[in-house]
Amino acid sequence: MNFEFPEELKILKEEAYKFAVREFTPVSQECDREEKYPREVWKKACEYGFIGAWIPEEYGGAGAGFLANTIITEQFSRVDMGIGLIMASCFGAENIYLYGTEEQKKEYLPRIASGEIIFAGAYTEPNAGTDVAGIRTRAVRDGDHFVLNGQKMFITNGSICDYFVVFCITHADAPRHKRFSLLIVDAHSPGITRNKIQGKMGIRASDTAEISFEDVRVPVENIVGKEGNGFYQLMDFFNTTRTMVAGQGVGLAQGALDKAAQYVQEREVFGQPLAHFQGVQFQLAEMATRIELARQLTYKAAWQVDQGRIDPKLSAMAKYYAGETAVWVADKALQLHGGYGYIDEYDVQRFYRDAKILEIYEGTKEAEKLTIAKIVLKEYQKG
Amino acid sequence: MNFEFPEELKILKEEAYKFAVREFTPVSQECDREEKYPREVWKKACEYGFIGAWIPEEYGGAGAGFLANTIITEQFSRVDMGIGLIMASCFGAENIYLYGTEEQKKEYLPRIASGEIIFAGAYTEPNAGTDVAGIRTRAVRDGDHFVLNGQKMFITNGSICDYFVVFCITHADAPRHKRFSLLIVDAHSPGITRNKIQGKMGIRASDTAEISFEDVRVPVENIVGKEGNGFYQLMDFFNTTRTMVAGQGVGLAQGALDKAAQYVQEREVFGQPLAHFQGVQFQLAEMATRIELARQLTYKAAWQVDQGRIDPKLSAMAKYYAGETAVWVADKALQLHGGYGYIDEYDVQRFYRDAKILEIYEGTKEAEKLTIAKIVLKEYQKG
Amino acid sequence: MNFEFPEELKILKEEAYKFAVREFTPVSQECDREEKYPREVWKKACEYGFIGAWIPEEYGGAGAGFLANTIITEQFSRVDMGIGLIMASCFGAENIYLYGTEEQKKEYLPRIASGEIIFAGAYTEPNAGTDVAGIRTRAVRDGDHFVLNGQKMFITNGSICDYFVVFCITHADAPRHKRFSLLIVDAHSPGITRNKIQGKMGIRASDTAEISFEDVRVPVENIVGKEGNGFYQLMDFFNTTRTMVAGQGVGLAQGALDKAAQYVQEREVFGQPLAHFQGVQFQLAEMATRIELARQLTYKAAWQVDQGRIDPKLSAMAKYYAGETAVWVADKALQLHGGYGYIDEYDVQRFYRDAKILEIYEGTKEAEKLTIAKIVLKEYQKG
Amino acid sequence: MNFEFPEELKILKEEAYKFAVREFTPVSQECDREEKYPREVWKKACEYGFIGAWIPEEYGGAGAGFLANTIITEQFSRVDMGIGLIMASCFGAENIYLYGTEEQKKEYLPRIASGEIIFAGAYTEPNAGTDVAGIRTRAVRDGDHFVLNGQKMFITNGSICDYFVVFCITHADAPRHKRFSLLIVDAHSPGITRNKIQGKMGIRASDTAEISFEDVRVPVENIVGKEGNGFYQLMDFFNTTRTMVAGQGVGLAQGALDKAAQYVQEREVFGQPLAHFQGVQFQLAEMATRIELARQLTYKAAWQVDQGRIDPKLSAMAKYYAGETAVWVADKALQLHGGYGYIDEYDVQRFYRDAKILEIYEGTKEAEKLTIAKIVLKEYQKG
Repeated sequence: MNFEFPEELKILKEEAYKFAVREFTPVSQECDREEKYPREVWKKACEYGFIGAWIPEEYGGAGAGFLANTIITEQFSRVDMGIGLIMASCFGAENIYLYGTEEQKKEYLPRIASGEIIFAGAYTEPNAGTDVAGIRTRAVRDGDHFVLNGQKMFITNGSICDYFVVFCITHADAPRHKRFSLLIVDAHSPGITRNKIQGKMGIRASDTAEISFEDVRVPVENIVGKEGNGFYQLMDFFNTTRTMVAGQGVGLAQGALDKAAQYVQEREVFGQPLAHFQGVQFQLAEMATRIELARQLTYKAAWQVDQGRIDPKLSAMAKYYAGETAVWVADKALQLHGGYGYIDEYDVQRFYRDAKILEIYEGTKEAEKLTIAKIVLKEYQKG
Repeated sequence: MNFEFPEELKILKEEAYKFAVREFTPVSQECDREEKYPREVWKKACEYGFIGAWIPEEYGGAGAGFLANTIITEQFSRVDMGIGLIMASCFGAENIYLYGTEEQKKEYLPRIASGEIIFAGAYTEPNAGTDVAGIRTRAVRDGDHFVLNGQKMFITNGSICDYFVVFCITHADAPRHKRFSLLIVDAHSPGITRNKIQGKMGIRASDTAEISFEDVRVPVENIVGKEGNGFYQLMDFFNTTRTMVAGQGVGLAQGALDKAAQYVQEREVFGQPLAHFQGVQFQLAEMATRIELARQLTYKAAWQVDQGRIDPKLSAMAKYYAGETAVWVADKALQLHGGYGYIDEYDVQRFYRDAKILEIYEGTKEAEKLTIAKIVLKEYQKG
Repeated sequence: MNFEFPEELKILKEEAYKFAVREFTPVSQECDREEKYPREVWKKACEYGFIGAWIPEEYGGAGAGFLANTIITEQFSRVDMGIGLIMASCFGAENIYLYGTEEQKKEYLPRIASGEIIFAGAYTEPNAGTDVAGIRTRAVRDGDHFVLNGQKMFITNGSICDYFVVFCITHADAPRHKRFSLLIVDAHSPGITRNKIQGKMGIRASDTAEISFEDVRVPVENIVGKEGNGFYQLMDFFNTTRTMVAGQGVGLAQGALDKAAQYVQEREVFGQPLAHFQGVQFQLAEMATRIELARQLTYKAAWQVDQGRIDPKLSAMAKYYAGETAVWVADKALQLHGGYGYIDEYDVQRFYRDAKILEIYEGTKEAEKLTIAKIVLKEYQKG
Repeated sequence: MNFEFPEELKILKEEAYKFAVREFTPVSQECDREEKYPREVWKKACEYGFIGAWIPEEYGGAGAGFLANTIITEQFSRVDMGIGLIMASCFGAENIYLYGTEEQKKEYLPRIASGEIIFAGAYTEPNAGTDVAGIRTRAVRDGDHFVLNGQKMFITNGSICDYFVVFCITHADAPRHKRFSLLIVDAHSPGITRNKIQGKMGIRASDTAEISFEDVRVPVENIVGKEGNGFYQLMDFFNTTRTMVAGQGVGLAQGALDKAAQYVQEREVFGQPLAHFQGVQFQLAEMATRIELARQLTYKAAWQVDQGRIDPKLSAMAKYYAGETAVWVADKALQLHGGYGYIDEYDVQRFYRDAKILEIYEGTKEAEKLTIAKIVLKEYQKG
């Protein structure tokens, strides 16, 4: 048993943090205000090997694993979670890695790692987030193609990506577990309309779009792995990427604590730094404790993925709690800043706005709780 | 004993709500996005008598009292708290009413009520919010004038007002309770610089500014009431206006519940409206209960003001709890909207951003808790 | 509008508190340790008119109304909620008053008020608390009698009462709203077995029992009001008595604050009274605020009952929040006592144990939340 | 990095749980009701090697380390935390192991491990828990003895132990860090009075006493390690044993969840098991998540101790959060049982009462938060 990071992860952690401070900070406010995607920073992150760090070396990646990926995301989010998300997300690539054919891996993964192409996972629909049964997007076989129709909503990278991995019905009459497949879809295909969603409350540097597929023709070989296996692939995707989202939460919360802990040592009231007051100390302690709790669980969940033993309960717990912690800590951090916390000269209000998405995307916290509860109840049925 | 509104307050409540729905809604999103002050709406509110509704009829107001004022603010905030704040705030006028000379009342109150002039209360400083002892702005007597120097921060209406009521030191060597006075200062006087604060996280329709006074000359007769009495006047100001701020909290929370309760009846998951799920019902019940709690206390605190018995404990409790409730309810309401709650097509994210200021301005919730605790401890010392 | 108590209620409040301090305190610890019912104290309370204070004067009561009853209960619970419950509960009498025939009122109410007889409301069953549909106890007509069979559980006063008001099925085939009746049953009738429940965690002075009815014959005229009307009668009962239970919560919480506020002024750490620390002051303020919130809502709900306008939403809100507040405040109060709070030399641990029942009996807080949610959702359907 | 238990710890965990179920369950209720110390069970635990499992083999122990000790305590507390405390506590032995002379280790540790003698740590005083500066007990040198005078409070094992390790002033004029020493005191010495504290709210099987030392003569060689080093020894003691107390919290919370998860699958309302309702599932998920969070941090803190790197921040975090979690989970578990949760036929009310001590003893949660905050603030000063 060993709770300590190996040397290479310690170094990675430091490097990722330094990179974020150096590269994100100068563009952070502008990207937030103007909903601007920092493509230059993204390119640099590719050069440094931060993008798709988990992609095995044989497919052009750093081969660092999902724990490493989680740590990078954590450190990036400590500085700017919106920009961090951009760096962390090659959503859809995980599916190709986990379930794709050898050809698919060879074709896409190296280009993702190098930054040549950008992927997006197109799963959520206007009327189906938590509830897979509500999915309507459908691919119908027509010769050696599928014809794809449907709407996707809240797709990260949606308006800038080169490929979608689309979750859709391929076997309409099959039971839920065999009804769906994942399709790799060229984002520049005819029949695709993409609308960037403006006016997000937070993570405004990141790209989010609504996508419409109208009679889009997709070659049959673009199905990820086995046809009809999409449901399981999607579950594994979420159970994997949730550890990364949990990392975002830990990082954002840590960044908010960074700011608060410094501010309370500088700001004086009643002739003393805020940090001297018991009520303030209680809050700092609670913030630090929650972050540490979230961090340990997140690392463990990510480590499980690297062991080839995805643990859906642990991933859900980590994501749910880290998200809640981010919201909670950001609120405390803003509050400790008083009026200054409310204006965008200070970053903490951005943390406050960004944090909230963590309780919503990649499965709302309610959806995660239901997942956890079902597994817990099953454990007690066994015994 | 009678917990029921008299008929005129019931009507006022309805009218205020209708006005807000009709007048605020069309400009709400634009004012929020562009930090734009809706002067036309403000003028209409003057015409309807909503501005300074508490100002007695003899001074040109509606003479409706502070409870009425609180109700108006509540109903306005139910629709848009940023715009509502504009309508509610003639900060400083309360001081003139409570402590000003007959001449001052006659000179300023009617013009405030008619909308001819706008007032702003300039109390907070860059280094002194909660802590009055940190105030540095100083007025030095020079013949029949004061010469005013200092900085004020986070001043609502600061860049658009015609007059400031400035909290400043006039007796530097006196003990804290006799050190300060309030001065009515023409905002167009030489020596005043005003910088509008851009980039507030919420209440973006409202105007907030940083003010600098450099050798500003103010006639001696502009002192509000008795010289050296400013500390008490400020306390009474806060204990009065906090009931209005509490009303903002109640209203915002109610507005957020309005939206959530409608959304959960429309949105379906797993083949049923969200409203059918026990977990959702629990949340609605908790939201509604907290709002009702905040409302009763707020009404009572405002009613006390109208009885001429300002109750600092009750005002502080109402403001603290209503603010916390607004933040809490807005968070739940946003969460119930899922991803849609995070984009500005839906108002609920504005409620989320706006709410947070309630825990900060007019005394942070921490400052309020200390006020409450001191009074509670004193009660137990008595016996 | 008037939030202030009339003089007679102010006096009642003081008198009730003094009575409780004087009469409960000497027996409190013994009754708690030994689960002993303080019958002598109860008799005195009858003499003072505290028992059934709401019973109209024409039926031998004080005619003080339900708000008065709630205030008495509050003040009693401030000292000892277990003993207070005994004093407050003439459960079942409310049904007779609200729905009974004139004969029933004349026969039972005066004897209840005088302390000649004790009543108990027998509604809950081993498998049906929250869920009325689960009720199994049944009364079958046999000539001019009903024959009653079934089990009742957690019946306050169950082993010491003279009469039960039994909620039972009289029309097995009718829809839920017409299936039940309430029967007045002589507790000394043949066929009744009563087992006192030992080992309650709190409210140990009060009597709680499991009751079994086996072929108990009950005269037809003992039906409360109209046959088949039991469901509505039970709802009204709960909506009425919940204001009293809410009063228990407010009182217990106030009593816990009393103890904490005194203790922190006496106990020193780091060379200062605990009361001087900001973290402690924050807690006192939160406790006091929650109590005040609960109190206002409780008074309003009780006042509504006296106006003849039972408000199920308000009663449920008051009961749920006051119960939660009692648990929360008792926990804080115990914590502020440190190790001393954990031993029965100090009362605060009794408050901690007693408080918890408030979230369970007379409808669990979950049941109350569902009631509230249903009404809230309906309000939004209308509009 | 490896988050997984080695095989021997997995086995130990199972064995400890089985032992607790088998041996504690039959005596649990009686010990709780009658405040009875289960000496027979304790003897068996000695035979099985559970007592002092961390004591190195060379001193007669199992040499299993502090993580093992924490796991045993966790599993014992899952069944009965009061009895578990008895099994886990050889308080004072840790000081001898960490700082004692070789002679002291040889003399005491083997007899502790075998169950021949029982130890107690006598640190807290009536007026000094959190605040070491308040300690009054004093040992004055007199030839080759110390003469000990003072009062100790809330001493676990106090009335049944054979030896005390007493924290006392030996250098009254030295600064705080050099003022104290730890003394091994024969509990049967003349001048010692011990009063068992009756009426604890929970952990009633365990022994707690108030101790008075009046001119008790203690040989000079009984000083633990270096004279004047007591302050550091005490800090290390707490930072070590807090991981065990955290283990109690994790175990109790798990035990409460065990009971709740089973109950909700058996108990039906509205025609379905409670477990089917969303609101119930949310709660189970929150309970399970908090337990998992507390567990990971507790294991890490205990693992650090075994690495010879006691981490005061982590120990404090683990103890504070595990204690809070135990209280929170026990409350939910009781609530899910409804009325049955409130009577001692069901164990869950004992968990509720027992849990609360975890926020108080071995440092209140407030004391722990201050410890955490100080370390956090220092970290930010460095960087």
